[in-house]
This record gives sequence, C-alpha cells and structure tokens, in this order.
Amino acid sequence: MKLTFSPGSPYARKVRIAAIELGLIDRIALVPTTVQPGQSNEGYARDVSPLRKLPALILDNGNTIVDSYVIAEYLDELAGGGKLIPASGDAKWRVKTEHAITQGMLEAMLLCRYERMLRPEEKRWDVWLDDQWDRAWQGFKLFEQRPDTLARPLDIAQIGLVCALGYADFRFPDCGWRKTYPKLSAFHEAMMKRPSIKDTVPPPA
Amino acid sequence: MKLTFSPGSPYARKVRIAAIELGLIDRIALVPTTVQPGQSNEGYARDVSPLRKLPALILDNGNTIVDSYVIAEYLDELAGGGKLIPASGDAKWRVKTEHAITQGMLEAMLLCRYERMLRPEEKRWDVWLDDQWDRAWQGFKLFEQRPDTLARPLDIAQIGLVCALGYADFRFPDCGWRKTYPKLSAFHEAMMKRPSIKDTVPPPA
Repeated sequence: MKLTFSPGSPYARKVRIAAIELGLIDRIALVPTTVQPGQSNEGYARDVSPLRKLPALILDNGNTIVDSYVIAEYLDELAGGGKLIPASGDAKWRVKTEHAITQGMLEAMLLCRYERMLRPEEKRWDVWLDDQWDRAWQGFKLFEQRPDTLARPLDIAQIGLVCALGYADFRFPDCGWRKTYPKLSAFHEAMMKRPSIKDTVPPPA
Repeated sequence: MKLTFSPGSPYARKVRIAAIELGLIDRIALVPTTVQPGQSNEGYARDVSPLRKLPALILDNGNTIVDSYVIAEYLDELAGGGKLIPASGDAKWRVKTEHAITQGMLEAMLLCRYERMLRPEEKRWDVWLDDQWDRAWQGFKLFEQRPDTLARPLDIAQIGLVCALGYADFRFPDCGWRKTYPKLSAFHEAMMKRPSIKDTVPPPA
C-alpha cells in the first residue's frame, strides 16, 4: 500500500500513528506529496482525489481510500477490527463522535492557518479567524472536561486529539493551550511516551 | 431522538434522507437551529457541539452524535445494518470513500458560499474561491465518469452526491452542472422521484 503524506499534515499523522499502533506501518510506503490551496495539483486531482487533500491510501489493487478517518477504519479492520475503534455499543458512537469533533477542530485550525499565512494580508478577516479558532478552542475545552476520554486505552479519538494538539504546537505555538487546559497537557505528555506519537511530531515550522 | 437541522443545510438533508429511507424519520424530532460563522451560538457550542455545525443527533439517553456521516451510520445500524453502507468487502470501502469525497465537495462549496456572501466584499480572494470551487467541480467530474456508482442501489455516497448537487442548485444556480455533466443530470432526475429526496430539497434561496 502507498500513503500520500507530508510531515506537517495532521491528517496524515493520524493515519501514520494508527498504522504504527496497528503493526501495519511496514506494509505502507510513504509517498511525500505537496498540495496547497491555490495550486492546481492537476495530477493529484485526477489520479488520487478531486479534493486535493492528504492523506490518501492507494491499495495494491489500485483502489484509493480517502479520508484520514476512513483510512484509519480500513487499517483497523485489516488488523482484525475493534482495535482503535470499538466494534459495538455506546463506546463505538462515543469514539466516532469524539473523533469527528477532533476532525472539525483540525479543519478549523487549518482554515486559521490559511487565513493568516496564505491569504494576502489586506484580505484577511478577523471575524472569520476568531470564529474558526473558537471552534478548535471550544473543542479543547470539551476534552479538558472529559477525564474518562483522556484515560481510555488508545483509540482513534485520542489520536485525533493528539494530532490537533500537535498541530496547535506546530502552527500556533503561542496559543497557550497547555496553560489553559492542564489536563490536556498531562494527557499529551503521557501520549508522547509512545514512539508512534513521538516519532511523528511535525518537524520545526 | 432529536436532530438539529435547518432546511438549507445539505448535511442535515443527508441525515433526513437517510432517516426516511431507513424508516426511522418518525422516531426523530427535527429541531430547527440557526448557526453561522461569526455568530457565537454559545448555547449550541456548550450543549451540542463545540464545532457549532448542523446536524447533531441527540439520543434519548442524552448522548449526542456528530457528524452527518456518523449519524447516518448510527441510523443504518439502528435499522439493522448494511442498508445504506455495505457491511463488508470492497463495496464498503468504495462507498465510504465516495461518501468522503461528496463530504469534501460540500465543505468546499460551503467555503465558496461564505467567501461570496458572508465575507466583506473587499476581503474576498478569488484564488481561494476558485480553488474551493474547483474541488467540488472535479468531484462532480469524477462521479460523471463512474456510471456504476450512479446505477447502484441507494447508498450513502449517492445520497451525499444528491445533497452536493442540490446545494449547487440552491446556492450556485448558474454554475451549469447539468450541462457539463449530463450523466449526473440524469442521475439527479431519477433520484428526485424518491419522496425522501424530493421532499427535502432546500426551499427557494
């Protein structure tokens, strides 16, 4: 299998962490790929995904799987199922919902990044920036108030949360999440003891 | 169960269509809700979802499920499983991937909508608008080239595609997708014969 990725992509990081934890990373060739809003990336749009997003998993039979959550689900099933996503019951919907929240937090932070760095300065709009940032920030607040979520055995929602926190460190190093959210800080520190998480931290910006 | 929704939300429409097709709509109370970037919607952020997005499904036990795909998956399981999402095999990953593409197309179209209507005129950036629109447009092109996808029994990817096409009609009525993509036009016309789809078309803008 091949995975399109970049070292800074939090979505690709999620899949890499999942693949390492599931013991599947050796079966995946990582294909460094650059995509950016405003660049056409026609080959990627045609051959991999019209959304021009990372990551995509290209199977040996040529089929392509997107997005990061669907890929993680696929890998989980390949590893026997029920490893990073509970197979049934309330726990399943809890983890899927919490993962979806971390996904939305990442989307909001990426929109902030594009607003601050990609868009010409005179066209930036603070209302938009503040609104998107608040979505991520309120998400962190929600998890700060869920000690049970932070204490569970590793799952895809926790991995999503680590990727969101790691992205905050990568692109918004002065946002101060550790000070505002001490339980998330302790959670992140504990998670960083896992090689899967430590070894996939984005490189210095 | 309660579902937060607005008549114009394509994500809420997806869940409503799924609930009707699965025979579950009578068990769901629709709760009209207004959320918009730039408005704080503090109660919704606190009680329903920090992302402030529609829809959310609030279960009778008080648990909340987001996002639209996770809700559709939950309803599918409640209806016995394997109805709108294949339970196994290549078909499962095909449908999940194709649904994820329709989801990304909708996200791109909503970003276009916000760029054109919400953002102050002097702060709009054509590069961003064109880039996001192209993601949706390339997505339509991909499905135009997949007759097998368009001809399958109803599934969540087709529902996502209908919602994306319906959103194009709702917010970008002059985009001309029917002319450019005749197979999608025939697909949409056939789908509109289903009450679930006809009765959930967004009201005139």
